[in-house]
Amino acid sequence: MVNFNKKEYIKSIKSLHPADQADSIENLNVKDQTSVLKTSTKDFHPDFIAYLREETREEILNLIPKKQLINLIKYLDLDDAVEILSEFETKDLVNTLSNLGQLQRSRIEENLKYPEDSAGRIMNRDFLAVKSTLTVGNLIDQLRTSRRGPKDFYNVFIVDENNIPIGYIPSGRILRSKRSKKLKDMTLKNVHLIKSNESVEDIAYTFRQYGLVSAPVVSAENKILGIITVDDVVEIDHEELEDDIQKLGGLFVNDFYKGALTSASSRFIWLGLNLLTAILASLVIDIYSDQLQQMIAIAVLMPIVASMGGNAGTQAMTIYVRAIATKDIDNSNYFKLIIKEFLIGSINGLALSMIMGLIAYYWFDSLVLAIAISFAILINLGFACLVGIIIPLSINKLKIDPALASGIVLTTFTDVFGFLSFLSIATYILNL
Amino acid sequence: MVNFNKKEYIKSIKSLHPADQADSIENLNVKDQTSVLKTSTKDFHPDFIAYLREETREEILNLIPKKQLINLIKYLDLDDAVEILSEFETKDLVNTLSNLGQLQRSRIEENLKYPEDSAGRIMNRDFLAVKSTLTVGNLIDQLRTSRRGPKDFYNVFIVDENNIPIGYIPSGRILRSKRSKKLKDMTLKNVHLIKSNESVEDIAYTFRQYGLVSAPVVSAENKILGIITVDDVVEIDHEELEDDIQKLGGLFVNDFYKGALTSASSRFIWLGLNLLTAILASLVIDIYSDQLQQMIAIAVLMPIVASMGGNAGTQAMTIYVRAIATKDIDNSNYFKLIIKEFLIGSINGLALSMIMGLIAYYWFDSLVLAIAISFAILINLGFACLVGIIIPLSINKLKIDPALASGIVLTTFTDVFGFLSFLSIATYILNL
Repeated sequence: MVNFNKKEYIKSIKSLHPADQADSIENLNVKDQTSVLKTSTKDFHPDFIAYLREETREEILNLIPKKQLINLIKYLDLDDAVEILSEFETKDLVNTLSNLGQLQRSRIEENLKYPEDSAGRIMNRDFLAVKSTLTVGNLIDQLRTSRRGPKDFYNVFIVDENNIPIGYIPSGRILRSKRSKKLKDMTLKNVHLIKSNESVEDIAYTFRQYGLVSAPVVSAENKILGIITVDDVVEIDHEELEDDIQKLGGLFVNDFYKGALTSASSRFIWLGLNLLTAILASLVIDIYSDQLQQMIAIAVLMPIVASMGGNAGTQAMTIYVRAIATKDIDNSNYFKLIIKEFLIGSINGLALSMIMGLIAYYWFDSLVLAIAISFAILINLGFACLVGIIIPLSINKLKIDPALASGIVLTTFTDVFGFLSFLSIATYILNL
Repeated sequence: MVNFNKKEYIKSIKSLHPADQADSIENLNVKDQTSVLKTSTKDFHPDFIAYLREETREEILNLIPKKQLINLIKYLDLDDAVEILSEFETKDLVNTLSNLGQLQRSRIEENLKYPEDSAGRIMNRDFLAVKSTLTVGNLIDQLRTSRRGPKDFYNVFIVDENNIPIGYIPSGRILRSKRSKKLKDMTLKNVHLIKSNESVEDIAYTFRQYGLVSAPVVSAENKILGIITVDDVVEIDHEELEDDIQKLGGLFVNDFYKGALTSASSRFIWLGLNLLTAILASLVIDIYSDQLQQMIAIAVLMPIVASMGGNAGTQAMTIYVRAIATKDIDNSNYFKLIIKEFLIGSINGLALSMIMGLIAYYWFDSLVLAIAISFAILINLGFACLVGIIIPLSINKLKIDPALASGIVLTTFTDVFGFLSFLSIATYILNL
């Protein structure tokens, strides 16, 4: 590696978009990060700290001298500042808050009172809410003279005398209307209210379902507290899905930006659990060790049965983990879907069992062995598809994240049942 | 099931949001869908056809009488109409186009000339692009008197004399500025141009990376052709990720809304491929059948080795399939990451091999067997993490979607290598 030239580096990132500055600093090694951030945060756009990935943010912020960090935070939008401060330790949080201006401080504190990943925590408090009695001209005059409210906004929300949102007007429509036009004659009524305790998953769902651009966050009494805009939802929805992908892949966190040791230890838990379930499956095999010794072909073929069950179960599980997340499955259709999965498992089980039966017959020249593995595959695929839907549904009922826990429970079932069914059927049919 | 009451149903959906109307019709069975759509599409919001899921859209649109369908399409936004018409057969497409108005028709035809999943195909052509020499007052007057251009917009794009975008102004800022203010004094210059042939994946990446609200789509000469807005990008990004989840789960399509037979056949291909790889692994075991017969404990333990390798490999693969999609991995860091994965595999391999060695020792009371499985697990985990990164990278180099193909190639490697390593090490150490 060439030596790191700090001056050159600062020159190269100065004119970049803050998102690219964040990427760039993330790709440096710790030594170079330290050297750059110790002295030169002025050369970055303050927003760059908002664009740092969740996985790297804490480590990088720790390299910035406290005073400079506070200066950066002063420039941030409310939602970005809240997200960053949520991860601070109490001491640092209190210290930082006491160094911010009164308005920013009270707004941050207000949002931090709401639970993590709730609408109240992530909302912005800079929004436009006006009464419907105004005309377009009144509103434009107010906007031109007042310094309050956001610089950029997509919708103007219309509220009643109790500050309850009753509609909205896209800002473009206001620009296209005559000054004399009354807001109440152009208000769109289908405004989706988001409760302050609503989860980010539900918010992402609502925005996608209805193609929203921004929506008001309201209190229990439906009074407007803040707004959430679609550009934040892109991020939320993306993270939700990335999260599911990782969990389905057996990862608790994305360790792409972590060192080998941290990555190894975070992946170890999952592998340790898998070791337990693999041992459980081996205990089943052990019960049949006498029979295996009498006919070693069974040992040769048994991984096929377990593997087919695991794959068929994973297909079904993947569909239903997502169907639960997107609210496509509920009490009205789950029974029909269970029947459907059983049918899918039976159809594919029948096809694959015939193929594998033929192969086993020609491979080991034994009709009974062929019949045994055929039966085992048929039963296993039906079973695998059934548990592939029942496991995520049950885990979800237990209020555990189905993406996280379904995979390991599923393979335990399909492995144990796979070996058990094949070995017991073979023992019975072959009279071992 | 209770009898379907069409009148009641129509009454119940009439006042729903088109997105909810689409959900509702998707949840009916084909018979009821047919009965409702044959006569009553007037009771739906025309937009409901734009909200139908990709997986169900074709079947449901086929139930709507042609004339009514054309009337619905007339109401759609350009991007929605183009998406729906892309899936029509040539005959229906030509017929539908000839029944649309001149402007809508030519715009749809223009977009359809661009490749599927490209910016040109999904862009909207209703946008505001003005010269920077105007004042705020000029612009507002034009917007109030002209009927051209979109009703709703977030940004006004500023173009030069060649129609090349040189900046943008959020509509809220225009509302907040004095009439005399010149647009050129408030133009934001950091406008991200999207080439008309850019892929939807790249567009989603750009919007997320820079937190964009809307961006202009431009020709090869950078002339503005249309715009893409963030609400469409939420959908695009979501579909990309859902797609990856399904592929990683061994599914070519999400068959949630398909019947059992269609689902079974679409899942069969994957299972058939898996059967081949499972047989390959069994062929490896077969080579060692004599040794297995001599020491049946090896047969009992061998699935553990393969299973651990498969799981460790899947963890790594999941990370790199996504890292490739989010452009986090490139020529500058891939070698470092391969080393990292080898380290992770070795660290976890060491830990798990010691645990499993102890268990095997107490289980079978054999030190050599314990040593054999320890070695096999250690080697396997190092190997699994290595192939977990190398396979997606290689598959991506071959221009195949790594989410689709990595899983099956990975398990082939980890199964074959898992059995091979354990059986050969055991044979050697145990002198079988």
